[in-house]
Amino acid sequence: MRLTVVGANGRMGRTLVRLIAEHPDLALHAALAREGSPALGQDAGMLAGTGPLGALLTADAETALAGADGVIDFSTPATSRRLAELAAARGLVHVIGTTGFSAADEAAIGKAAAGARIVKSGNMSLGVNLLATLVETAARALPPGAFDIEIVEMHHRHKVDAPSGTALLLGRAAAAGREVELEAASVRVRDGHTGPRPEGAIGFATLRGGSVVGDHQVMLAGEGERIELGHRAEDRSVFARGALTAALWAGGKAPGLYSMRDVLGL
Amino acid sequence: MRLTVVGANGRMGRTLVRLIAEHPDLALHAALAREGSPALGQDAGMLAGTGPLGALLTADAETALAGADGVIDFSTPATSRRLAELAAARGLVHVIGTTGFSAADEAAIGKAAAGARIVKSGNMSLGVNLLATLVETAARALPPGAFDIEIVEMHHRHKVDAPSGTALLLGRAAAAGREVELEAASVRVRDGHTGPRPEGAIGFATLRGGSVVGDHQVMLAGEGERIELGHRAEDRSVFARGALTAALWAGGKAPGLYSMRDVLGL
Amino acid sequence: MRLTVVGANGRMGRTLVRLIAEHPDLALHAALAREGSPALGQDAGMLAGTGPLGALLTADAETALAGADGVIDFSTPATSRRLAELAAARGLVHVIGTTGFSAADEAAIGKAAAGARIVKSGNMSLGVNLLATLVETAARALPPGAFDIEIVEMHHRHKVDAPSGTALLLGRAAAAGREVELEAASVRVRDGHTGPRPEGAIGFATLRGGSVVGDHQVMLAGEGERIELGHRAEDRSVFARGALTAALWAGGKAPGLYSMRDVLGL
Amino acid sequence: MRLTVVGANGRMGRTLVRLIAEHPDLALHAALAREGSPALGQDAGMLAGTGPLGALLTADAETALAGADGVIDFSTPATSRRLAELAAARGLVHVIGTTGFSAADEAAIGKAAAGARIVKSGNMSLGVNLLATLVETAARALPPGAFDIEIVEMHHRHKVDAPSGTALLLGRAAAAGREVELEAASVRVRDGHTGPRPEGAIGFATLRGGSVVGDHQVMLAGEGERIELGHRAEDRSVFARGALTAALWAGGKAPGLYSMRDVLGL
Repeated sequence: MRLTVVGANGRMGRTLVRLIAEHPDLALHAALAREGSPALGQDAGMLAGTGPLGALLTADAETALAGADGVIDFSTPATSRRLAELAAARGLVHVIGTTGFSAADEAAIGKAAAGARIVKSGNMSLGVNLLATLVETAARALPPGAFDIEIVEMHHRHKVDAPSGTALLLGRAAAAGREVELEAASVRVRDGHTGPRPEGAIGFATLRGGSVVGDHQVMLAGEGERIELGHRAEDRSVFARGALTAALWAGGKAPGLYSMRDVLGL
Repeated sequence: MRLTVVGANGRMGRTLVRLIAEHPDLALHAALAREGSPALGQDAGMLAGTGPLGALLTADAETALAGADGVIDFSTPATSRRLAELAAARGLVHVIGTTGFSAADEAAIGKAAAGARIVKSGNMSLGVNLLATLVETAARALPPGAFDIEIVEMHHRHKVDAPSGTALLLGRAAAAGREVELEAASVRVRDGHTGPRPEGAIGFATLRGGSVVGDHQVMLAGEGERIELGHRAEDRSVFARGALTAALWAGGKAPGLYSMRDVLGL
Repeated sequence: MRLTVVGANGRMGRTLVRLIAEHPDLALHAALAREGSPALGQDAGMLAGTGPLGALLTADAETALAGADGVIDFSTPATSRRLAELAAARGLVHVIGTTGFSAADEAAIGKAAAGARIVKSGNMSLGVNLLATLVETAARALPPGAFDIEIVEMHHRHKVDAPSGTALLLGRAAAAGREVELEAASVRVRDGHTGPRPEGAIGFATLRGGSVVGDHQVMLAGEGERIELGHRAEDRSVFARGALTAALWAGGKAPGLYSMRDVLGL
Repeated sequence: MRLTVVGANGRMGRTLVRLIAEHPDLALHAALAREGSPALGQDAGMLAGTGPLGALLTADAETALAGADGVIDFSTPATSRRLAELAAARGLVHVIGTTGFSAADEAAIGKAAAGARIVKSGNMSLGVNLLATLVETAARALPPGAFDIEIVEMHHRHKVDAPSGTALLLGRAAAAGREVELEAASVRVRDGHTGPRPEGAIGFATLRGGSVVGDHQVMLAGEGERIELGHRAEDRSVFARGALTAALWAGGKAPGLYSMRDVLGL
């Protein structure tokens, strides 16, 4: 499968280039970078540390997609929307890890899915997407009066917000399983006299320290037993790996708009 | 819901009696013990430490079931089989936590399910049954070449076998998700020069110590990320609680043979 | 060793009576209860569920101490202070798990330690006291600029305050290792835009749910590695067990005021 | 502090060069490689991906040490022994992460420590060395009849032996705390009918999977409570970081033979 990488000079782009070069079933077809980028014209493999791969960075999307089987795209809403339209015209696979789309963007991408095989997710990790599904299943199966849901996450010392986006994603999965709104059920702070735990609450707790890439754990605690559902990211390449798994999966599918849950067969 | 408890003078029976007495929607209807038991004629509540409940231990199953809505039964295959037939004749709920049935027993219980609402499971904990389902889902979703499955369990120092029955139950769930036989895939010992991990293996590791009631964790470890799915039992009452949850659930169902997965809606 | 139990009709007292009855090297000497308690005159063993032990509950401390080797005391500051004076006059072991002493109480107990062998601690669990020592050692050894300290705890859904007293005890141990004040270093809430983690902070996170007796974990997270130091209490008897271990230990010591760290040889 | 790196073209050497270049208090003085290495003459920084640092790889140890403050050495026993003698003659810091020394090598290094400030350890991670000290303290404090010690480790799927060297190091620390021989106390396999846990045993359990760099946990499990002491390595740079911390620490010390426990002040 021949893949074009968007933003091939960025951190995610270089990881994608390296993983494609190492993968037996994938090849780097072309490498896109922004108009005006100083990296234009350089070999994507040299930037990624793999040695030369023959794909020179270009800002011309049409050229970069010609002859490709798919495009891997962690970029901006405007770029992703335009690439979806180009992918639709060519029947390509388009894996979108970009976030921040407007409703109009979403509509345009939905329309492009008539021609392109699009896999789109705000978190491309296989593990996190699987975990979210399991959390939803567990939250649906266990009665809220009998089991309490708590979500704890740890990230490195440089992270500036809390809880993490992934913790909130897991919280939404739990809330969906219980058919409640996360915002109404959330308890995000406990300090001093808190009183007993409100029934049905979904609690969050945040740890920060060291160089932790991202650990998440969801606990469902009942009388006499606990279920603990967790995910540990060891390095940031998991998002790139998930995107490539999605591309390979979508290669055999009909045009349409897919999620990582589809890739996982869930 | 009026429940008859089998083996009401045993450890599990007394826990059931106590939990029934505490539950707003349950009442103790009658209490069975073996023919010849010295506890016959005593009040089941006194034995359970709740104060008198008016149910005197009897060895007469027909009397004990007359007027009951259901029967909770952790006993022997022969007793459970006979109780299933009595429950069928009366249209009762029959929760069976007994293990060790022969094929003939299973067939007889299957037949009784034409009249009785039977919930039967080798492990009555809600949490363990839910975890097994989640493990099967995860094992099915993740490719065996990319994710390795490991199962680690810890129990108290008095436990004499390894791995635990629950660890093997979780292993079978993982194997079912991958559509392989557990026996062929298991790695149960690692010591000295082991060589690299065989692809597709399901590994077991056993810890023993202190008074741990039962901790289990299933890991699915891939390149750069891990999913950890675990269960901690804090006390042995979780099996009794699960049986009572099953009884309440079955009260509203048609006659049939159900599992704890049905109770969980999975 | 013959022990008198204070508050023998309370939850802790009954646990102490039961553990003493089971211990090969201990015997119940006498059982104290408050003046006016309806349990006065009852056999302490019957209250504890062990069968009769021959020790009838009395409110007369002098009688209860006559002929004893030691007294185990989870009561009130006024009672503990008076018992310390009685123990001093008789050269007894006095294990004090009471909390809430005034400075005057502390001084009186210190004086009594000229005659009595007193072991006094706000938390009688061997494990928690050991963990606090390990945390202090780790916090002293690792440079605060390189390792971040986080403390996470989980307790049952009925607990009304946060963080737990034990979490704060562990935080003070960490602060002592670093020679800082816990109050100045604590971060007890993280929600929304927090900014990067302040260097030297000691963070707290709180989980609530189910019937968890008490789990605590202290993390020291650096660049590329983490140390995790934790304690899990499985049932509330650990405080009673620690008190009895302290009594046996103090039996062979000179009069003085000891802590659980002394009992642990730390 | 000006440091010479041994084996600067190897994986560990390149990590050391990179970390030295990033550290405000360290500078790369020279870079050694084996006689005949194709990397001789290349800039160590180019090999490490930092850009040129002006230190060209040389096989001449005397030149490489001239003017240096210290030398960081993960190499072979013969090389380390010779470097110790050169470091002694110049009063340098010599950090030795090499393993596999003969008794004669150890004696020679001991002699060199009259002139050099040598820090030598089979595991250069700060965290693992600290953990070993804590495990020894805990094992000494808790009575072997009351607390059971278990050691569980997880490593990536490519590791070919079990238990890991670090697990055995932690086991030796536990055995030292109890003043027993690890070999006599070890239980390394549990499968099938094991019987109850032998008193005083130190159990090992091994997990393998994914890309786990190295997780270790030591449990001390008693009646009703557990202590869990663990370490997680997130990437292999922790050994290089520990070596550099050791070098900075030794800069201010008198000549002598030190361990990582000395560096940690334990």
